[in-house]
Amino acid sequence: MKKIMIINGPNLNLVGSRQPEVYGNESMEEFIAKMKRTTEGVAIDYYQSNIEGELINKIHEVGFDYDGIIINAGGYSHTSVALHDALLAVAAPAVEVHISNIFAREEYRHHSLLSSACKGMICGLGLEGYQLAVYFIARMQ
Amino acid sequence: MKKIMIINGPNLNLVGSRQPEVYGNESMEEFIAKMKRTTEGVAIDYYQSNIEGELINKIHEVGFDYDGIIINAGGYSHTSVALHDALLAVAAPAVEVHISNIFAREEYRHHSLLSSACKGMICGLGLEGYQLAVYFIARMQ
Amino acid sequence: MKKIMIINGPNLNLVGSRQPEVYGNESMEEFIAKMKRTTEGVAIDYYQSNIEGELINKIHEVGFDYDGIIINAGGYSHTSVALHDALLAVAAPAVEVHISNIFAREEYRHHSLLSSACKGMICGLGLEGYQLAVYFIARMQ
Amino acid sequence: MKKIMIINGPNLNLVGSRQPEVYGNESMEEFIAKMKRTTEGVAIDYYQSNIEGELINKIHEVGFDYDGIIINAGGYSHTSVALHDALLAVAAPAVEVHISNIFAREEYRHHSLLSSACKGMICGLGLEGYQLAVYFIARMQ
Amino acid sequence: MKKIMIINGPNLNLVGSRQPEVYGNESMEEFIAKMKRTTEGVAIDYYQSNIEGELINKIHEVGFDYDGIIINAGGYSHTSVALHDALLAVAAPAVEVHISNIFAREEYRHHSLLSSACKGMICGLGLEGYQLAVYFIARMQ
Amino acid sequence: MKKIMIINGPNLNLVGSRQPEVYGNESMEEFIAKMKRTTEGVAIDYYQSNIEGELINKIHEVGFDYDGIIINAGGYSHTSVALHDALLAVAAPAVEVHISNIFAREEYRHHSLLSSACKGMICGLGLEGYQLAVYFIARMQ
Amino acid sequence: MKKIMIINGPNLNLVGSRQPEVYGNESMEEFIAKMKRTTEGVAIDYYQSNIEGELINKIHEVGFDYDGIIINAGGYSHTSVALHDALLAVAAPAVEVHISNIFAREEYRHHSLLSSACKGMICGLGLEGYQLAVYFIARMQ
Amino acid sequence: MKKIMIINGPNLNLVGSRQPEVYGNESMEEFIAKMKRTTEGVAIDYYQSNIEGELINKIHEVGFDYDGIIINAGGYSHTSVALHDALLAVAAPAVEVHISNIFAREEYRHHSLLSSACKGMICGLGLEGYQLAVYFIARMQ
Amino acid sequence: MKKIMIINGPNLNLVGSRQPEVYGNESMEEFIAKMKRTTEGVAIDYYQSNIEGELINKIHEVGFDYDGIIINAGGYSHTSVALHDALLAVAAPAVEVHISNIFAREEYRHHSLLSSACKGMICGLGLEGYQLAVYFIARMQ
Amino acid sequence: MKKIMIINGPNLNLVGSRQPEVYGNESMEEFIAKMKRTTEGVAIDYYQSNIEGELINKIHEVGFDYDGIIINAGGYSHTSVALHDALLAVAAPAVEVHISNIFAREEYRHHSLLSSACKGMICGLGLEGYQLAVYFIARMQ
Amino acid sequence: MKKIMIINGPNLNLVGSRQPEVYGNESMEEFIAKMKRTTEGVAIDYYQSNIEGELINKIHEVGFDYDGIIINAGGYSHTSVALHDALLAVAAPAVEVHISNIFAREEYRHHSLLSSACKGMICGLGLEGYQLAVYFIARMQ
Amino acid sequence: MKKIMIINGPNLNLVGSRQPEVYGNESMEEFIAKMKRTTEGVAIDYYQSNIEGELINKIHEVGFDYDGIIINAGGYSHTSVALHDALLAVAAPAVEVHISNIFAREEYRHHSLLSSACKGMICGLGLEGYQLAVYFIARMQ
Repeated sequence: MKKIMIINGPNLNLVGSRQPEVYGNESMEEFIAKMKRTTEGVAIDYYQSNIEGELINKIHEVGFDYDGIIINAGGYSHTSVALHDALLAVAAPAVEVHISNIFAREEYRHHSLLSSACKGMICGLGLEGYQLAVYFIARMQ
Repeated sequence: MKKIMIINGPNLNLVGSRQPEVYGNESMEEFIAKMKRTTEGVAIDYYQSNIEGELINKIHEVGFDYDGIIINAGGYSHTSVALHDALLAVAAPAVEVHISNIFAREEYRHHSLLSSACKGMICGLGLEGYQLAVYFIARMQ
Repeated sequence: MKKIMIINGPNLNLVGSRQPEVYGNESMEEFIAKMKRTTEGVAIDYYQSNIEGELINKIHEVGFDYDGIIINAGGYSHTSVALHDALLAVAAPAVEVHISNIFAREEYRHHSLLSSACKGMICGLGLEGYQLAVYFIARMQ
Repeated sequence: MKKIMIINGPNLNLVGSRQPEVYGNESMEEFIAKMKRTTEGVAIDYYQSNIEGELINKIHEVGFDYDGIIINAGGYSHTSVALHDALLAVAAPAVEVHISNIFAREEYRHHSLLSSACKGMICGLGLEGYQLAVYFIARMQ
Repeated sequence: MKKIMIINGPNLNLVGSRQPEVYGNESMEEFIAKMKRTTEGVAIDYYQSNIEGELINKIHEVGFDYDGIIINAGGYSHTSVALHDALLAVAAPAVEVHISNIFAREEYRHHSLLSSACKGMICGLGLEGYQLAVYFIARMQ
Repeated sequence: MKKIMIINGPNLNLVGSRQPEVYGNESMEEFIAKMKRTTEGVAIDYYQSNIEGELINKIHEVGFDYDGIIINAGGYSHTSVALHDALLAVAAPAVEVHISNIFAREEYRHHSLLSSACKGMICGLGLEGYQLAVYFIARMQ
Repeated sequence: MKKIMIINGPNLNLVGSRQPEVYGNESMEEFIAKMKRTTEGVAIDYYQSNIEGELINKIHEVGFDYDGIIINAGGYSHTSVALHDALLAVAAPAVEVHISNIFAREEYRHHSLLSSACKGMICGLGLEGYQLAVYFIARMQ
Repeated sequence: MKKIMIINGPNLNLVGSRQPEVYGNESMEEFIAKMKRTTEGVAIDYYQSNIEGELINKIHEVGFDYDGIIINAGGYSHTSVALHDALLAVAAPAVEVHISNIFAREEYRHHSLLSSACKGMICGLGLEGYQLAVYFIARMQ
Repeated sequence: MKKIMIINGPNLNLVGSRQPEVYGNESMEEFIAKMKRTTEGVAIDYYQSNIEGELINKIHEVGFDYDGIIINAGGYSHTSVALHDALLAVAAPAVEVHISNIFAREEYRHHSLLSSACKGMICGLGLEGYQLAVYFIARMQ
Repeated sequence: MKKIMIINGPNLNLVGSRQPEVYGNESMEEFIAKMKRTTEGVAIDYYQSNIEGELINKIHEVGFDYDGIIINAGGYSHTSVALHDALLAVAAPAVEVHISNIFAREEYRHHSLLSSACKGMICGLGLEGYQLAVYFIARMQ
Repeated sequence: MKKIMIINGPNLNLVGSRQPEVYGNESMEEFIAKMKRTTEGVAIDYYQSNIEGELINKIHEVGFDYDGIIINAGGYSHTSVALHDALLAVAAPAVEVHISNIFAREEYRHHSLLSSACKGMICGLGLEGYQLAVYFIARMQ
Repeated sequence: MKKIMIINGPNLNLVGSRQPEVYGNESMEEFIAKMKRTTEGVAIDYYQSNIEGELINKIHEVGFDYDGIIINAGGYSHTSVALHDALLAVAAPAVEVHISNIFAREEYRHHSLLSSACKGMICGLGLEGYQLAVYFIARMQ
């Protein structure tokens, strides 16, 4: 059974209550729980922190052991060379997810420093993006 | 039953034979055929052209009638305001797909003019990206 | 009697139905028909295509024979060196028209590559812009 | 009867004598006089100053009382946020006019800060541009 | 008793009537009058002009005699090296005020050329910003 | 009684000892204590951390409960999209404060990513800036 | 005997009549005919289209069969990622030709997106450039 | 006898008292008086204004009558397209003078918009620059 | 005996295992231990954290007490104004070290925000760079 | 008989031994010798120097006497205004040659300052480029 | 008697014969000779080289001994940090001269790297510029 | 015994006398002599020239024979593609040295074109930087 770690960065603890017109009404915790119930054949873990370095610590911790990482680094996506390097430094492939369509928002959100260190990106598809990333890693060979 | 149109732009007729280290060995036609066989509850159509204006014509033709468009405009993604405008002008939501991770290639591929006119983007996940986009549109409310 | 060719580019076939808050409710065909009825002393022809190269073909075709060209190249205005060159290559003077105020929209619409190959530009005045351009060419010496 | 104010900025007092290969041989005063004689159903006023702040004063003075403003701010077009703000602050719609084709001249003339505060722009059509702008405001609903 | 000169630039004569959603409903004159009544121990003078050079004249006139200048140069803030130089040339310290949050508006309003010639800046706090600037100068040592 | 949280970012724990020619000789703790004693009708709390994510945690903690946040994010002001998002995600209005005049220092300090997520900014007025921000929030309606 | 395909893009059908001070008086057809007569040991084919996608179609058609492609994509040279990709996708080596010296013209002509997908470039040497490219491919090993 | 008009822009009325480490201790009036006494064979007039448009008015007034203009537009040098146009519009040749070395100061002072409309520039040589410019115009043929 | 603190930032805990073609096979811990054994006359301490703010805390802690700091802030080097400020705020001189040649890697690694707050930089010389920095601080007067 | 001077700049003395994957195995001297033997009707001279100013001296020396110059200025191509000016200053037409495809290498090699001072450019075709340039000059009228 | 060294850079040996519409018909040698005859009280020396490093050698040689340097570094003005450093390294003040108005030519000539290392600049005044520079140094205190 | 060549570029012959606050009081010659006396096991040679091409000649001369090159190209570091190419063309590894901290000086000194052609860089550590580079090459395997 494949092990997948979902890592969420700053402010994503507020999804469901924060700016619902952008991020929807469902909380991450509810969505993760639902996904665990309905997705077979993978073990899903979830971690959230607002501290950039703790996200790096978590990547180091799981990056040689899990089959895939799903990462939404929130605002750090656009500014963090350190997170880019952390993803490059480990063995597990990563899929970047953004809930909103970052290309339809402010210009400084159009570029993610993490993308080139990931396998690929899913953005703008709401919380569904995490589900699709799980499907992808589950089927990856 | 939802109707989905997959529109592929320039050079994507060569997928399977062209640069296999980037685009893989499977042809689009085989992949589409397999997807039609295995995906239930949606009708999938496929169109490819190397001519930018014919892609616009197709968007106009299906854009008020289909439930969703999946578009990979290839090289036109990075240069075409006209395709952006075509997607904005129609009613059907669109999901942008790129086979390769455009953010890990040349800088002029990092920005797609189509993204801000689409619901979201899936990139870097190979032909699987089309499958995930089909799942997304199928479940969209 | 002067001959004037109006050439419209991509997505302008949808004027009247597409984004009426930007482009209004009147279709190009109705407007052209009305303009033909009410404007004396000029022969007005109208051509629309979504294909960049067909717009070039039309410019070549009429550019040594007509007294003036009115061109709204839509999204190609901002990206096409080839259309710029086509206008430079022919004898007929051209007036560029944009229905909306391109300078009050997204930044990538602020610059038209065609402008420097035209006599002048009229923008932001709705379909009226075509009428004013017709007046101008009619009176040009 | 609609009231239209034409406001001309720096160096436009010299039109007719200054660089005739760019601006022609007819003076603004003669052209305005001719336009007043031949255009029915509108009252046309004309103001020129080389002082940026006096142009702002005039916009404030007429901006809540006239039906439209035609403005050619000359060199200030490319540098004045203050004039942009003045046009935004008043009720009367404005049409920007440039005698020469600013897009075919030096790069610093390609962008007008006033454009986004105006209804639209007419440029490159010589003094005729003022006449077309008058027609437009006269017919505006 | 400290003497403070408040200098307002272009279009600020319209505060209270112009774009109330940005600038509020209270006029500068009323606000200044209220501030004079309620602020003890300082003499407050007020000057407004739409003419850049008259603002410079006023800075020269008061700049060696008053204890502080509060300046809101409106649109000239973003374009005037000459006003920057005028503030540098005189002895009185200046505090820059902007009624709206210039950093949350168009990009060309994000940078004020005056800031580096002033003691500091207060922006986005409405007319209150002038009051806070008065408090600051009153208490400055 | 209004509750105000003052949040200071990296290196501001050294104010009073660090570069006194830039930041003065008074420590933040002394200044806060003095401000608490002398400002009536508001409850002032103070928090400082050098860790970006802990600043975000604090904003989340107080952002739905306090009447206002005064934030000086030090060096993170110029680089943190995540702090910008945290301020946007909560209900309490924020006022940004900088002790020194950031516009008169190195160019990379001229732009704060937080400004557009705040009500306004006070900068260059020394520790007084915090006092003025307190006055503002106290009087805000 | 080597097979060489010469592919010309937009507006190059007008060479000989269009702007003779830039492109000379000889038509492409005459020049190609002369070159066929005088160049031994190679079979030369010629194709011209104003439609970007038809150029791509032709590259696909000949790109696995001919010994070399000589391409002058005219205005598309400066804007087409799709043509770049088409040249990369096929086996035949390409030589880029420009009749005029693109580096001595407007700045937007200084960069060709095709160059990095070609073996090399010959520019500014008039129609002779095609002849030299034919010599090169004929002798290539 | 040649007639030369010296035109000084904003803040140059303060030369001699303002920032003496940059501009020296001698006032313009004293220097002009001394220059009139000691320079033979030319009539020198002097004008100063802080108002951009008045500088334009003066250029128009003398520009068809004097043998040369010496202009130091101060801060307007770096921002005024209108002054550039005024100098271009008149017949008299102009020499631009700057007292300080603008190339050794802030970057926004490195470029003068007036330079390309003048015969040449003298900068960094203090008030002597005006004297050298007078010599030049006196000897010009 | 001089006291030197070596501070390593994000991902440098993985040196020796991570991307050995870039960072080599020796771990930091082994190298530090060897350096302590072989370098006489200095006391060397070592600290690593993936958390930016903890690096700042450590700089504050040792910066008034140690004789020198050797800092390799990894990915934070390219993005952290806060670390720059921390180094400026303390008394101890710092030498920046990078294991790889940052100037021969991606462009976003070419610029370190820390460099201007340090005495100097050693880069590209592998772990040897730390040893050379220790020699330098040991001999500094 | 036409006289042609081939001028090679820095590091081209090492062609044949230096980076053979980029520049091939044949030395310039051998190639020039072969070209002299096999090309009829022209006299070919060859000069190489690593010193920019000596290249200028040589251009001056031959530029009024030879029928054409073939120049490959190596690294100076991308940085030398002085060489550009030297080519402009003389009568002989020049053809620029680059052995490798400069457009497929580092970005700073994409632009040659010499190009706009030459008749045209041949690049990426190996040493053959020199031969083609000789053919061109030999046939030029 | 003051000693002045005039140093001319690349291509200035051709003044008088090269592009007379830009540089005039008089040769430097004749002009220098005339200036020596007619200027009293100074000793003028003249040096020209096309080699950047020889210009540096000359600056070193005279820079601690002469009273002033007049330098026209031609094309090196726009590219040479090394010449800038050489002028900074010596004691003699320098005046930069350009024969043509560099600000009215190509954009890459608008910036001279030498200017900030010189006392000032004279440009666009033809060979007269050297004479004015001599006057200036002769009178400098 | 390893052979090391130290190559110094323009103006470095003046070290010890030139700007001692930047470069110190010790001359290069004295420092080299001291280093030769005190460093065992390596043979150190020293070369200085102000002529860019002579530095290239020296690199060619020693680059296939010595064990390492230490290069400080002074002002040429920031402008010379040719020196970059020379270092790439030879076999000996190079270490770049700068006496001052180029990252704490003017922005045009922040980037060295040589860095990416060298093994690494040492900067800001005074003449000690040369000594450290010698140690590094001596110990390199």
